[in-house]
Formats: sequence, C-alpha cells, structure tokens
Amino acid sequence: MTKLDAVLSDLVIANRILAHEGVVDGLGHVSVRHPEHPDRFFMARSRSPELVTLDDIMEFNLDCSPIDQRGRVMYGERPIHGAIYEARPDVGSVVHNHAHELIPYSVTKSALRQIIHMAGGMGRHVPVWDIRDEFGDTDLLVRTLEQGRSLAKTLGNNSAVLMRGHGCTVVGASVRDAVRIAIYLMLNARLQTDAMRLGDVCFLSEGEAQATANMAASPLVVDRIWEYWLHRSGYLPDS
Amino acid sequence: MTKLDAVLSDLVIANRILAHEGVVDGLGHVSVRHPEHPDRFFMARSRSPELVTLDDIMEFNLDCSPIDQRGRVMYGERPIHGAIYEARPDVGSVVHNHAHELIPYSVTKSALRQIIHMAGGMGRHVPVWDIRDEFGDTDLLVRTLEQGRSLAKTLGNNSAVLMRGHGCTVVGASVRDAVRIAIYLMLNARLQTDAMRLGDVCFLSEGEAQATANMAASPLVVDRIWEYWLHRSGYLPDS
Amino acid sequence: MTKLDAVLSDLVIANRILAHEGVVDGLGHVSVRHPEHPDRFFMARSRSPELVTLDDIMEFNLDCSPIDQRGRVMYGERPIHGAIYEARPDVGSVVHNHAHELIPYSVTKSALRQIIHMAGGMGRHVPVWDIRDEFGDTDLLVRTLEQGRSLAKTLGNNSAVLMRGHGCTVVGASVRDAVRIAIYLMLNARLQTDAMRLGDVCFLSEGEAQATANMAASPLVVDRIWEYWLHRSGYLPDS
Amino acid sequence: MTKLDAVLSDLVIANRILAHEGVVDGLGHVSVRHPEHPDRFFMARSRSPELVTLDDIMEFNLDCSPIDQRGRVMYGERPIHGAIYEARPDVGSVVHNHAHELIPYSVTKSALRQIIHMAGGMGRHVPVWDIRDEFGDTDLLVRTLEQGRSLAKTLGNNSAVLMRGHGCTVVGASVRDAVRIAIYLMLNARLQTDAMRLGDVCFLSEGEAQATANMAASPLVVDRIWEYWLHRSGYLPDS
Repeated sequence: MTKLDAVLSDLVIANRILAHEGVVDGLGHVSVRHPEHPDRFFMARSRSPELVTLDDIMEFNLDCSPIDQRGRVMYGERPIHGAIYEARPDVGSVVHNHAHELIPYSVTKSALRQIIHMAGGMGRHVPVWDIRDEFGDTDLLVRTLEQGRSLAKTLGNNSAVLMRGHGCTVVGASVRDAVRIAIYLMLNARLQTDAMRLGDVCFLSEGEAQATANMAASPLVVDRIWEYWLHRSGYLPDS
Repeated sequence: MTKLDAVLSDLVIANRILAHEGVVDGLGHVSVRHPEHPDRFFMARSRSPELVTLDDIMEFNLDCSPIDQRGRVMYGERPIHGAIYEARPDVGSVVHNHAHELIPYSVTKSALRQIIHMAGGMGRHVPVWDIRDEFGDTDLLVRTLEQGRSLAKTLGNNSAVLMRGHGCTVVGASVRDAVRIAIYLMLNARLQTDAMRLGDVCFLSEGEAQATANMAASPLVVDRIWEYWLHRSGYLPDS
Repeated sequence: MTKLDAVLSDLVIANRILAHEGVVDGLGHVSVRHPEHPDRFFMARSRSPELVTLDDIMEFNLDCSPIDQRGRVMYGERPIHGAIYEARPDVGSVVHNHAHELIPYSVTKSALRQIIHMAGGMGRHVPVWDIRDEFGDTDLLVRTLEQGRSLAKTLGNNSAVLMRGHGCTVVGASVRDAVRIAIYLMLNARLQTDAMRLGDVCFLSEGEAQATANMAASPLVVDRIWEYWLHRSGYLPDS
Repeated sequence: MTKLDAVLSDLVIANRILAHEGVVDGLGHVSVRHPEHPDRFFMARSRSPELVTLDDIMEFNLDCSPIDQRGRVMYGERPIHGAIYEARPDVGSVVHNHAHELIPYSVTKSALRQIIHMAGGMGRHVPVWDIRDEFGDTDLLVRTLEQGRSLAKTLGNNSAVLMRGHGCTVVGASVRDAVRIAIYLMLNARLQTDAMRLGDVCFLSEGEAQATANMAASPLVVDRIWEYWLHRSGYLPDS
C-alpha cells in the first residue's frame, strides 16, 4: 500500500468511525491534505459519512475547486477545509461536525475546557466563531473562502473552534489525530456539562494539558483505540 | 414510478425513518395529501409506524372518512390530519408524534426556539395547544373534527404545534419536509434544554431563521440526509 | 390456544418486552395470576427476564410455595407477588423492576405524578415504601410474606408503589396492562424530571387521569403497541 | 476445566462484559490474580477489552514484568494492578475504567455514596486520588510502581478509588465480584446525579450497606446476572 493509498483508506475509515461514534450524523465531513501535494486535499463527494466509500473521494485545490469533478455533487462547506489548510501548514486533516454535546458551548458563555486526560490535544482554549459578527444574517453555512478564512482566523493555533448555533471544526496532524480529538472533545463536553451540575470543577493544569496531548497521540493509545473504533463501525476496509 | 407511487413510497419510508430516529414510538402517525386530489390524504391503518408497509396505506377524505375501509382499523386521531389539510392548503404532509424531548416544552412556560441551523423551517414560534382550554377534561386525544380544527387554529401559519401533556404535530410542504422538521425540532429541543443549563442562550435571529429554512429544504441537504436516514432505518423499499 | 396457554404466552412475551424496553435489566420479574385458580400464580424460575422461555415458568401458591419445584432455583422476592395477589383480588399481574428513571423518586421527596396521556393508569398517587420503617436495616429485598404484606399495604388501591433505594412494583388487571403501565410509568418519570428543570409543570387533572386510564387500556392502543413492543424485542413466540 | 482455565475464561468474558455494558470503551483493563501463584496476575496484552480473546492473555509478576513477553505490546498502566495485588492480599481481581458517569465525582467535591441496593459492595466510602498531589504535572497515567503504590494507599481497604480527571479502579475477591461492583458503581453514580437534581437524597445506612454487600455477592444474584451480561455481550466462550 502506497502512502497515498494508506491516507485515503484512513479517510474512508474516518468517515465510518465519526458516524458510528455519533460525532457526525447525516451531515458533517472529514478531509485530509494530499501527502505529496500540500496544496491539495481529499474529501468525499456530497454524501453522508456513514455511507462514504473509496469511490466517493474527490480531490480539491486549496481554493476548493475540484481537480476532476465528473459531475459529482460536492459539499457546500468545502471552504472550511480549504481555508484551514491554507492558513495552517501544520494541519493534515480537518473534521467538521455538529456533535450535539458541543452545541450548548457554542450558544452560551460557558467555556469548554479539558476535564479528562483522554481529551489531550484539544488545547487550552476552544474559541467560538459567530458568523454573524462579520457576515450578518446568513444560513450559518461556511459557503465562501472569505467566510472560511474568517473561521480559520478565529481557530488560530488552536485544535478546535466552535461555530455558534452550528457545530465545530477540529484539526489534527493526521486523520487519526483529528478523529481522536473530535471524539474526545465531544466526550469532554458531555462530562463537563455533567460535572458542572455537581459543583466547582477541577480542570487539567497547563502542564497536564501538554503531557496528555503527547500521551493521547502516542502509538500505544492510538493504535489500540483506532482498532476498536474501526471494529465498532462494522466497516471492512478492502485491502 | 408515477408521482402517486413516489409519494406513497416516501410515506412508507417516512414511517420507518420516524420510528428509527425516535420521533415516534409505537404510537404517532404521518400522512400525505393526495398529489392529484387535494381533498384527500393517505395514512396507514392503525399500526405502529415501524411496521407499516405499502399494503397498510389507506385513503381518506378531509372529513377523515375512509374511501374504502375494507374492515381495517383506523387511527383514532385522524382529525389532526384532516383538519390541518382543510385549514392549510400549503401543507402537503403532517407528522403527529410524542417525541420525548418536546414534552417538557408542552407542560411548562419555557418556549421552544431555534438554536441550531439544521432546525431551519421550525419557524419563529411554536405555539402550545391545551385541549383542556376548550374541551375540559378529556383523554387528551384529538378524536373529533371540532378538536382537530381547534388544534389547526392554534397551529395557525406555523410549522409545528405542541400539544400539552401529549406531543406535537409538524407540517411540511412534502413528506420529506415534514419528516426533516420533525426530526430536527426534536433535536433542537434536546439541545435547548442542555444549553439552558449552561446560561443565557443565543437563539437564531429572524433573518437567520428564514435563511436556514431555505437551506435546510434545499436538495443539497435533503437528498443527502434522506439517503442517510433511509439507510439507518434498515428498510428496503420495493421498487 | 386455551386461555391458560394464552396467558402463559403473554407472560413469556412480557419478560422479553420488559427487558428490551429497559424496564428490567438482569433482575426484576413479572408474574400472572392463574386464570382458573385465583389462589395461584405463574412466574419464571430464577432467571433474567431477557432469557425466559415457556420452559422456565413455574406455578406458585399465594404463600409463594411452588406447586412442583423439581429442583429449580426460585426468585427470592416471590413474596412481592404472593402478598399483592392476596390483598388485591382485582390484580391479575405484577411487575417488579429497578427502572433507573424511577429510583430518584424513591429516595427524594419529589412525588411522581402523571405528566403525559400515555401514562394513563399509573394513578393519581404513587406511594413510596421504605422497608427500613418497619424492618430496620435489611438488604432491601422483600424476602418474607410479612415484608410483602407491608409493601402491599402501602400499595393500597394504587397502580404502583416505589421502593426506597430499590425499585418499583406495578400491578394491572392483565399482563398487558401491567407491562404497559410499567413502561409508561418509567417514561413519565423521565419526562417529569426533564420538565421540572424548565419550570413549574402542568400535570394531568383528576378527570384527565381517569379518561387517559380508560384510553390507554383500550384495544385500539394496546393491540397496536403490544405488536410493536413484541417486534422490537426480537422474540418469536412459538404461536 | 481446571481452576486456572475457569479463571482465565472468566477474565476474557469480563473484558467483553465490561465493554458491552459501557464500563470501558477502547481503553481500560481488567486483571485477575493467579489462583495458584498469588504473586502473579493475568491481564490482556495492549488491546481494547471488546476484542480480547484467550490468546491475548499474558502473565505478570507483581512488579508488572511479564513472565514471557514474546514481543507483545503491554498496557502502560500495569502498575495499577501490580501495586494493588501487592498491598491487598484479599483482592483477587482489579478493574480499571473511565466510566463516564464516574468522572464528575472525580473532579468535584461531591461524594459518591450508595443509593441503590444493587450497588452493595461498593463500600461506605469511595476516595478520590489526585496524581497531582504527589507527582505534580503528569499525563495522569499510572506509569510507575511508585504511582501505583500511591493509588493503592488511597484505595486503602475500600472497594473502589476514583482518579481525578481520569477514571476509577475497582477491586473484588473474584473477577465476577469486581465486574459486578464496577457495573453497579457506574449505575449508582448515574442515579445519584439524577436524584440530587430532585432534592435531598436518602442514602443507604451502614447496616444496609453491609447487608446489600452480602446479598449482591450471593450466588442467587450473581449467577443470574452473569448469565445475562454474558448473553448481552454476544460473546461465545469456547467452553
């Protein structure tokens, strides 16, 4: 399997895992930067992640134009992905989702903060982007590169950005990285909401946040949990 | 497939989707107006939505009398559907459900309001109808056309009406429309309840409500998510 | 199928339905009074409801002694059932469960009250029995007829009694009756808990409670929902 | 089946049950002390519990060194297990998990206390261990025997210890014992959180805690519920 094949295989698996773990429902999408051409990225045609196969994967320029459309319908929110790859050379994969647990943190003043070690990599700060601030009344979708760049600017050097009344975008060095952070960010939100009901919450310190980021990205953890998520998704990769 | 066949196929699929997504349980029902005879509508015989097949579909006049009963048992709450088709020529489909997330908004003074973009089409206002106001102590079912018309009056030009201690009725231009709004109205309620625990909530503006209504009804979104819901339901349409 | 066969078939199905709907987990039990000998009742040998088959059904006297034990292990809490059949000639079936949603109402001063029409039959009052009041420190199980009679006394003429730190016991005229009330009592608790978070709750009036009790027990509703629950349980009766 | 075979079979089943009941996800682990060599214990190689088979089981000394590694990757947190077996001769099995319901009690001042009879054996006191107290900023994993011994010290003679921002460790005389307590401890946490929303909570008395510990460990209960959990897990032991 070439490096490109491996990346595309992981991309399809990521679609299935994100759907099965409830990070995405019928909507949401995940992309990966081309491993040899950093000015391109891959993402499925407009299709629910749970149904995506290798045949659905399309290739795009960073301006979100398709390399070879062949009549396929494309996700409207490609600019989320293109604009982030443009602004963040360190980012290798982007997950956009509407995970239910995150929405309350996008529409209130409560800040999402790391409460469990497995959310290592979610970062010290999860900013909230409100499309209304810059673009007034819209349908909340990120439809233009200008909107995508505004989102990327709010994301800054963080790992995730909440989108008011809409959802969240998570980035990682690789597909497995972005998927892992997306899943545990969602879980962190659920547990934070539960814990806040019981009283003052003890969050991770800055040193712990850094140490858990390294731990959660280590092969000992990632390989074990990726095998588990793949198994649960019920998807059987070809190869 | 004729237009009528397509409409009836969607109606059966709608039953399965609503059951699988938890909008209805063993009770609840969905109907569609006859595409050629606007003074008639289709709905299953008295059967749980999860089990409905094409053979179960019956045809009714707007006064809720059956065209050809053939001894089949009918839903007792047909007047919900007949009265709304009578009052609202723009309505092509009606979903009646007891979705759990909605009930708390039917028995308290908390107003259900749009918090996420995908609930586009739920409208700016979701009125609450209390059968006791006009009809005193009942079993809360809408058993007569008079009760159905009272409900339709409270529905007004909105997309949904809550029924105190009972459930909800949602309308749409088509079956897919009504199903989509019913599912996301339920999700909106869950997220609003969660968000209100965290502090003051930022709801969508009037302009955003209108723009998201258009977006959520667009083929780009509807086709993708209908394919997803159908797949999840496990139902295989004949065709 | 004789009347006895039909009753026993319903009893096995009830075990499967209660397990699938989450009313019971590995523990809990359901019994039915003998249709011809009102001084006897049927219940499974000591086995998780999800696994009960016709072969597991045993027959008991009202003092909870087995008619023909044949070495089978018996539920320790048979006195719940025997004592209620003894005290309440109108009761044809008893369900004992630990449904999670009900526990909070057994350990706090919050009263469980009817909030939805489908909980018709749960009654105006759900008393709480605390075994400690009369028997001091125990393992909370109802192990003796004396304890069972104390529970039956607190149940009185109601449809359900909560047991502090333990669970709930529901009665009905028939198996289908008791199962229906047990399922909707659990749902009513969940919705009441959710609704109380939103503000003051509007409960059903006394007249509505009576009318919905009649409605929920009517064949139009019961037949439809029993078919649905049976289908969901995945159990195939021998017929 | 020899005693050793029976113990190892239960260990594999325990992995499957804990995964299916949601006590562990892709992470977490369960171990058992060697029935003939109390200075050794068994635990899977580094693998998600849901996927563990008999072939994955490895044998360790109490210092957590493997008897015969054969290149297999090992769980990093073996010191949790080794240190507890060292400190507690009465302990025959250890479960380490990240059950979601427990996390809020690890990061707030709310004490977890017994609210239901089936949590018998969880003990009167569930201490919280914060790795930061003794070891400063870490990734929260228990990576050294020194850290394991610190955890074992906080566990003391209790049945469970919460780990701040991380999870929980439960001990029992046997695998079935530790599994049962782990599952009901999780459920107890959920119900306690729900009950505290409704008002002041009535917890079990000291006498009830002791009596329910005996009851919950009795064959009448354990055999019934172990059969149920095994069935639900879908795992078929070789026998």
